[in-house]
Amino acid sequence: MNLNIKVFLKAMGILSIVMGAAMIFPFIVAIYYGELLVATDFLYCIIPTVLIGSILTLKIVPEKTKLTVRDGVLIVSFSWILASFIGGTPFVISGAIPNIYDAFFESASGLTTTGASILSDIESLPRGILFWRSFTHWLGGMGILVFAVAVLPSLGVGANIIASAEAPGPTMDKITPKISDTAKNLYIIYGVMTVIEIVLLMFAGLDWFDASTHSFATMGTGGFSTYNDSIAHFGSYTVEIIIIVFMIMAGVNFNLYYYAISRPNGIRNMFKDDEFKFYLFIIVGATALITLNLLLTNIYENPDESLRFSLFQTVSIMTTTGFASADYDTWTTFAKMIIFILFFVGGSSSSTGGGVKVIRVLVLLRLIKRSIQLQIHPNAIIDIKVNRKKLSIDTVSSIANFIFLHAMLVAIGTFIISFSDFDFLTCFSSVLTCIGNIGPGFNLVGPSMNFSEYGDFYKMCLSFLMISGRLELYTFIMLFAPKFWGSER
Amino acid sequence: MNLNIKVFLKAMGILSIVMGAAMIFPFIVAIYYGELLVATDFLYCIIPTVLIGSILTLKIVPEKTKLTVRDGVLIVSFSWILASFIGGTPFVISGAIPNIYDAFFESASGLTTTGASILSDIESLPRGILFWRSFTHWLGGMGILVFAVAVLPSLGVGANIIASAEAPGPTMDKITPKISDTAKNLYIIYGVMTVIEIVLLMFAGLDWFDASTHSFATMGTGGFSTYNDSIAHFGSYTVEIIIIVFMIMAGVNFNLYYYAISRPNGIRNMFKDDEFKFYLFIIVGATALITLNLLLTNIYENPDESLRFSLFQTVSIMTTTGFASADYDTWTTFAKMIIFILFFVGGSSSSTGGGVKVIRVLVLLRLIKRSIQLQIHPNAIIDIKVNRKKLSIDTVSSIANFIFLHAMLVAIGTFIISFSDFDFLTCFSSVLTCIGNIGPGFNLVGPSMNFSEYGDFYKMCLSFLMISGRLELYTFIMLFAPKFWGSER
Repeated sequence: MNLNIKVFLKAMGILSIVMGAAMIFPFIVAIYYGELLVATDFLYCIIPTVLIGSILTLKIVPEKTKLTVRDGVLIVSFSWILASFIGGTPFVISGAIPNIYDAFFESASGLTTTGASILSDIESLPRGILFWRSFTHWLGGMGILVFAVAVLPSLGVGANIIASAEAPGPTMDKITPKISDTAKNLYIIYGVMTVIEIVLLMFAGLDWFDASTHSFATMGTGGFSTYNDSIAHFGSYTVEIIIIVFMIMAGVNFNLYYYAISRPNGIRNMFKDDEFKFYLFIIVGATALITLNLLLTNIYENPDESLRFSLFQTVSIMTTTGFASADYDTWTTFAKMIIFILFFVGGSSSSTGGGVKVIRVLVLLRLIKRSIQLQIHPNAIIDIKVNRKKLSIDTVSSIANFIFLHAMLVAIGTFIISFSDFDFLTCFSSVLTCIGNIGPGFNLVGPSMNFSEYGDFYKMCLSFLMISGRLELYTFIMLFAPKFWGSER
Repeated sequence: MNLNIKVFLKAMGILSIVMGAAMIFPFIVAIYYGELLVATDFLYCIIPTVLIGSILTLKIVPEKTKLTVRDGVLIVSFSWILASFIGGTPFVISGAIPNIYDAFFESASGLTTTGASILSDIESLPRGILFWRSFTHWLGGMGILVFAVAVLPSLGVGANIIASAEAPGPTMDKITPKISDTAKNLYIIYGVMTVIEIVLLMFAGLDWFDASTHSFATMGTGGFSTYNDSIAHFGSYTVEIIIIVFMIMAGVNFNLYYYAISRPNGIRNMFKDDEFKFYLFIIVGATALITLNLLLTNIYENPDESLRFSLFQTVSIMTTTGFASADYDTWTTFAKMIIFILFFVGGSSSSTGGGVKVIRVLVLLRLIKRSIQLQIHPNAIIDIKVNRKKLSIDTVSSIANFIFLHAMLVAIGTFIISFSDFDFLTCFSSVLTCIGNIGPGFNLVGPSMNFSEYGDFYKMCLSFLMISGRLELYTFIMLFAPKFWGSER
């Protein structure tokens, strides 16, 4: 065991500064709304966090050594645990969420952009706290450490390894030669989109508070609302359409936007991307099937509501946002089954969406198709291609491994959560929705329910599932492998 | 398309003779019990089946050509559909099951050794019919065509290809150079074990009818009982223990028995087999966990009943038999979750048990373990070994493909069955239990329920899932691949 402890501590320091600095925004919001007690509570969190962070960052001068994969894993994993912890402190100190396990869950759910909540009455919370809760989505959406790399390119702690350990999707596309430039570009696109959504939502009649909190949750594909009945609260077509469009945009590979802006024929090329096409195909297909089913079963009085609600819920689950404009738990088993399948898909790679990712599902389906063809023509040579390029055996097998690991974690997770003796579907969907960073599940954790019924032990398990889901499983799971802690080869 | 139509028809002829001849046993039973009407009904089935079969077999002289994989697939798939159809005719003609879809379901369920039933009152049926229903388990257990190969080695229709398309498990081990000898040896072991179980059950107090029907269902890992409350009817420790032992034996790779008899140190070598050890490990582990859970939650008054019921249900589900001595659907979510995980495992390869098979699950777990190790040491070379032998990349990837295909079929199956608008767990477990050839599921298809609530369309879908599960997915699924029907390469 040969951990680069100085780099580790320095990274934790930088993270603390970022988290502390981020709380300045809710602090200002609290003051604006005259919630002076809440503002003071935020100060109690900001000052020590930034102070300790600064000491660690400034005092520690690590030797110039290359980071190992193991260092990257440790740094990223503990960063997320620490960030969830720091993010939860305002909830505890302000008394909004007195139980620290609950606060950790809520904060981890925010940062991992899951959007699962233990709060039964959201609207009773002070504005500053609500703002912070939604802002964690925005922070976590692109990756907290990617953010750190973007704003502090000189932090000198192996940005490359860290970014790839935190980035969503099979590979971190280097759209620019320097990883810090990549991070910066991604955050600029992310930021501009968020601002545009805020403005549009304000045009649609929301005040700046509702507009910004819901934009954070949309663009981060998080799903926390400031209202108990989520987006259904607004009851507005326009608001729903704006949010649908931006959810869809947040679930797209952000590199495609960069290419669309920076390269000729960028937008046309976007529609040539296999993952993007499949992503749109699933959304359109699932919406069509659910709409038809809702129409046939006459669940909604107005026929157009069937389309409206099915599109919103499809996009919300598919992109792993988790907003609700209707309670899909009251739909038919068939419609629920489609929602359930979407639980396994998730957003595109390098988007803010979670889950298994569209590209992996696409490769999986091509693998299955090939395996059937191979049974018919055992000696045929059939390549798995994405965007007309042949995938290497290593890439294909790492995708297959990822899916197996995902399935195993879901099984083990459900196994542990089933101790709670809630019904099977509640346990199963709790695990799926947490590991996929979605938010709502079925039955006791359906869109109109929340996770408050679970005991502290289960909340911690589910929090860790959220973090492992957000960190693409391996990064976090490796901590539990005996070999990881073994001697260096 | 270049199908060897003569070989195909000849094979169908042989199958008809086998099925027709097999009905002579229930015919005798019906006469013995004085059910003359039922006996006549059997004659109505036997005569035309054997007659048409004989004409096809004797009149057709195929050219001596090698069978292609495609021929094998077509022959085996249609054999099972035809066998299920023929097997269902006595149910319809005798009026025991008037609806032909129900009869097809019941017959397919019997032959595939699933044991799912559409009958609500089993005990009201005549003895001859009950005997036939159980006897289909025994016929299908080792494979109908393997049986044909065993008794008619000279049938000259590519025994090799047919046997490997029908055999359970990743590979058909050729324990003897000639495939017909292999088939014969397997059937001798199978037959001797069945006779021993019948004798033991008679010593335990059962009459010859109950002893033989339940032995057929045990050794074929089927699960049809002649009583509404299955094995719970007998309420006897001894009977349960005998059935537990024989269920476990039926779930073991039959080649191991052959080696144990024919080779020195055979029995000691059996305990060195990775699959066998893992098989026993799962049974012991699952039983221990469920027993503990039942004890802690005080579901049964007597502490020893917790062990008794958990062992029986674990073995029954794990081996995909599906007998019930207690209703696990009334257990805790945790205990149900363990049962649920067992749904995915199944028996050993080359056993009469269905499901994904222990060996594949073992390889899968080793794959996941390796993928985590590879994340830690990206350049390490780690082989997947079974019985100390390295598996080839082809073998590993075909096992991975199998598991993916299984998951996809379960998803598509549940998707279709969810149209029925039964609750999710009912639909999901119906598909799992049919594709895994188990029998009971959860909720509306739990151990104390049956499949009669489903409409005809769903019964047919589930029947086809049973057959694809029995034929190791590919054989049957290939029929739906456009490439399969395309031009020869």
